[in-house]
This record gives sequence, C-alpha cells and structure tokens, in this order.
Amino acid sequence: MTLRELGEFGLIDRIARAAARRGGSGAGVVLGIGDDAALLRLRPGEQIAVSTDACFEGVHFRLRNESPRSIGRRALVANLSDLAAMGARPLGCVLALAAPPGLAVRTADALVAGLLDEAVRHACPLVGGNLTRASEISLTITVIGAVARGRALRRDAARAGDRVFVTGTLGGAALERARAERGRGRIRRVAVPRLRAGRALSALAGRGRVACIDVSDGLDADLAHLFEGRPLGAELAAARLPIPPGFRAACRRAGLDPEALARGGGEDYELLFTLEPGAPSAARLARQLGVRVSEIGRVVRRPAAGRAPAPPGWRHF
Amino acid sequence: MTLRELGEFGLIDRIARAAARRGGSGAGVVLGIGDDAALLRLRPGEQIAVSTDACFEGVHFRLRNESPRSIGRRALVANLSDLAAMGARPLGCVLALAAPPGLAVRTADALVAGLLDEAVRHACPLVGGNLTRASEISLTITVIGAVARGRALRRDAARAGDRVFVTGTLGGAALERARAERGRGRIRRVAVPRLRAGRALSALAGRGRVACIDVSDGLDADLAHLFEGRPLGAELAAARLPIPPGFRAACRRAGLDPEALARGGGEDYELLFTLEPGAPSAARLARQLGVRVSEIGRVVRRPAAGRAPAPPGWRHF
Repeated sequence: MTLRELGEFGLIDRIARAAARRGGSGAGVVLGIGDDAALLRLRPGEQIAVSTDACFEGVHFRLRNESPRSIGRRALVANLSDLAAMGARPLGCVLALAAPPGLAVRTADALVAGLLDEAVRHACPLVGGNLTRASEISLTITVIGAVARGRALRRDAARAGDRVFVTGTLGGAALERARAERGRGRIRRVAVPRLRAGRALSALAGRGRVACIDVSDGLDADLAHLFEGRPLGAELAAARLPIPPGFRAACRRAGLDPEALARGGGEDYELLFTLEPGAPSAARLARQLGVRVSEIGRVVRRPAAGRAPAPPGWRHF
Repeated sequence: MTLRELGEFGLIDRIARAAARRGGSGAGVVLGIGDDAALLRLRPGEQIAVSTDACFEGVHFRLRNESPRSIGRRALVANLSDLAAMGARPLGCVLALAAPPGLAVRTADALVAGLLDEAVRHACPLVGGNLTRASEISLTITVIGAVARGRALRRDAARAGDRVFVTGTLGGAALERARAERGRGRIRRVAVPRLRAGRALSALAGRGRVACIDVSDGLDADLAHLFEGRPLGAELAAARLPIPPGFRAACRRAGLDPEALARGGGEDYELLFTLEPGAPSAARLARQLGVRVSEIGRVVRRPAAGRAPAPPGWRHF
C-alpha cells in the first residue's frame, strides 16, 4: 500500500498510534499529538532550548545505502545532539515529514519507527508534526529541551589558553558513509547523542567556563563555528585525535586518508568543548561525563578573519 | 547570484543579519541565531506550546502565482495561526529552509524577508534554523509559544449543545487561489493570524468551556478534526456563514460555487470555536476578541463514525 492509498489522515493515525504505543507522553508532556499545538512543561528555574534540523533524501541519506529505520534514527539523533551540545535535557520533538504519494506505507512506518526508537531511548517523545507530499522524502525535526537558567553551554565562552576536548572518537561515520557511497556496505552505525555528557558539562558551567558544540559538520568546520567572529583558533595535536579501533587500516583498505576523514568527516555527533586551563584531566572528565574524553589541543589567539575560509566539512550549496 | 555561489554559511550570515536588523530578539529570547540551540524563557505559570508546519513548492505555493515575499509571510502565518488556536502568545520561531543550489539569492532573501515581516508584526522573532539543498523550495517552520497553565484552547472540550462560532470570513483565500491556479491574478492576500482573539478566548477558558481550532484545511474538514474520535458533529446554518464582501459575485464570474469554497476552502486561518450554551452573544464576543465573530451553528450528538469520511478540505496524498 502507498501513502496515496492510505491518505494523509490515515498516516497521521498510524503515526499517532505508534507514538502512543511507544510512550507518547513523558514527564514534560502536558498535551501530545492531536491538537493545534503540543503543550510541554518546564521545571522551575529552567529555560527552553529549541533546535531544528532537516534530513533530505539525496543529501543526508539514500534509500539504497541504508534502511528506513536507520534513517529515522539518525534524523532524531542529529537533533538530540544539538540539545546535548547546549547541556539541555529533551522534553519532546515534532516531525515534519514530506514524501512522494507513491511511497510504500511500510517505508514511512519504518522511518517513524526509527525516530521513535531514539525518542524512547532518550525520553524525547514525538508530540506533534506535519505531513506533506513532496518529490523527495524529508524529515525535518524540531526538538524542545530544558536547561537550567545560566547553565546552557554556549559556543561563545572560549578564550585563548583554554584547553580543547572531544568525547568519543571521530571519523567512523565518515568512513562508513564513504564506503556506502562507493557501493561497499550500507550505513548501519547510528551515533549516540551525548546527552548525559552535555548535562554533566552543564553542571561544570555553573562553576567555570565551558564552550561546547557538537561535531556534525566535521572537527575543523565545527572548531571554526566555535570561534566564529572572534580572533581565536585552535592548535591541535594531530596524534591525539581519537579514532575508532582499526580505523587507519580500514581507511587504507578503502584508499581513504584517515586524518582527512577524522578532521573533515561529519555526523559523529561527539561533543567538542573547551575548558579553562585549570580544568580537570581528560581521565577525570571521562568519569564525570560517562564517556571517553580526549584532550586534543589548545585555544590560541589568531587574527580575526571574519568567516573562516572554507572548512572541509559538509557544504550544502 | 545563486545560493551555490553564495554558499551555505554566506546565506546563514545574510539571514542572521536580516533577523538582527529587524528585531531578532524579543522579550522571550535569551539566545537567538548562532548556537546549537536557541534559548527562550517563559513567565511564571506558563507552559510551552509548540507547532510545526511545512510549506512546499508545488504543493502550498508556486513561484509563478505569488511573490517570494508573500510566500514567506504566509508560511509563518500558518504557524502563528496554530498558536492562536491554542490561545498562546508567540516566543519565537525556527526555520528549516530547503532550496535548489541554483536559486537566486534575491529569491531566498525575499522568502526570509516575508517571514520576518510577520515575525516583527507578531513579536515572534526568528531564533534559529537549518539550511539544506533540495530539488524543491520548502520552508518548514516551528513556532514556540507560551500559554498560562490550564488556559490552552484544546480541541476536545466541545459537548453536544455547545454553540459554534467563527471569526472573520471564510472562502476568500480559496477564491484567490482558485483564480491564480487558472492564471487569473496572483495570490496577494495574507491572512491575519488571530493571536489576539485566541488570547481573549484563552481568558474565557478560565471561566467556562472553550474548544478551538484554526481553519487551515477548510471549515468542514476542521469541524471534523474538532470532533474527531467523539460522537459529535455540527449543525450549521448555511446562511450564517460569513463570506467576504462581493464574494458571491466574484465566484459567479469565476464559475465557482461560493458555498463549496466557503466550506471547503482552506487557509483563511480564522478561529473556529465552540462555547457553552450560556456564552455571550456573537456581538459581545466580537468586542472581546477584537474581530468579527459569527455564530454559525450548534454541536450535536452523532453516531461515532471513527475517522470522519473524506472531508472536502486539503488532501496531501
């Protein structure tokens, strides 16, 4: 059966029922799917964090390279990662789904099931949305989160001399994508949004200086974003870049440059952050954040260059 | 110049500068465009209202029928209308813009300028967004609003015997669209989201029963949404349907059925609401809501039919 046969309201019903089965409400939800707007609640002393991210067929995914369920999972993870990078906890999300009328209902079901997998895992219920026909499939998700007043992890906090850290490893997502684009394997890896680590950093932000961004465009590109419009840069120790086990060998087999992938590849969704010189060691931070942490360099003064020159990350136009 | 030449980050800069020039911040904005997420604040006793709505080329608009500025305006109005229908006040919005790389920068500028026109008018600043390439232009907007706890205008409040009201007039948007589709004139009319009326109804909701929805799909379709899943319907007095001045004559000239347009046409973005039998008269409500109000019928009991049979409003698949 196709979406044309099922109809818009039939699909809305299916999505609403699937969301309800999988815990459509949560502690922050006052009113979920089915009204003109959803209603969410904050705890005292909290502010709203909001971020939107789009996932388009042919740009962010290809159906031949990846299961629809994985696409749905990755779409929400990209959004949750933005909340993590602010130190926020998720309250809920809304999905604007666009698809051709000829799309199989089971494909739409699987896209939504993937989104709900991550929604359940990270307590970010689907509370509303929009459906429209279009010539390409796209999932545009907006996440709403909550963060204690004054504890959000803003990009503009870094100063010269601060130390640069990153969670997890870099390059794995780019390697898998590069292989899939060459017809060698499918994309199966779904990053883990670093929500717990972000909240732990948010607690540190109450006591010292923390700047944070998630690595969605690639390390070099996201470093440039972190310092944008300010006369700062980073000196990185290339040997300290954390890469997945077996990464160099896998890159060599695929004819790819491991350093270029680790620095330029996006979608690892690790947290890239800076702390004051007197901050804890990477080992101690790892315990506090519940994830591997590597110290990879230092913030330095640099002549203001306006917009950084073409970083090697994702480019959209 | 095209988006390909300008680049993604060039376009982000342009949009951020335009938003800043036109009042990018507002009373509810803690942190606007430029970080992983925007930060917004509520007043004590308020809850978050969130709604998302997509506007796709070829479905919701055609560049040959309408100026890009009007498209941008209508895209935000559709979202603001959802906040109005909940009785919420706007805090801010985020825009996920998708466009082909060959699009002229001046077209993208005009789309955004239109959105900002309405953002300024209704105190709903643009606080973040996302850009991606796609084969069609689309604007997917999510609005965040605030509503006092217990005062949101929910759809499920109506009971048999309640009176049915609508603000403004119906059919005008559908007539203009039908004419434009036949190559007779362009779409110039931008609806006014009934935010003030929604807040006035929200105050009434503190003292009595109010159900509310905005007329985006068409009167009959939105009445069906209002009663969805419950054994209720509405008896309407066709003669009381409020239509714009000169509407019947204009429909006749265009060979269109005025009643079908007034009942089936969408995008008027008026508020359709029900009140208890003892509610004020339409004339008194008009003074309270600051807009024309017509009493058009009554809620009646009706055998539960599950999903209402194909209402004549917009269909997406």
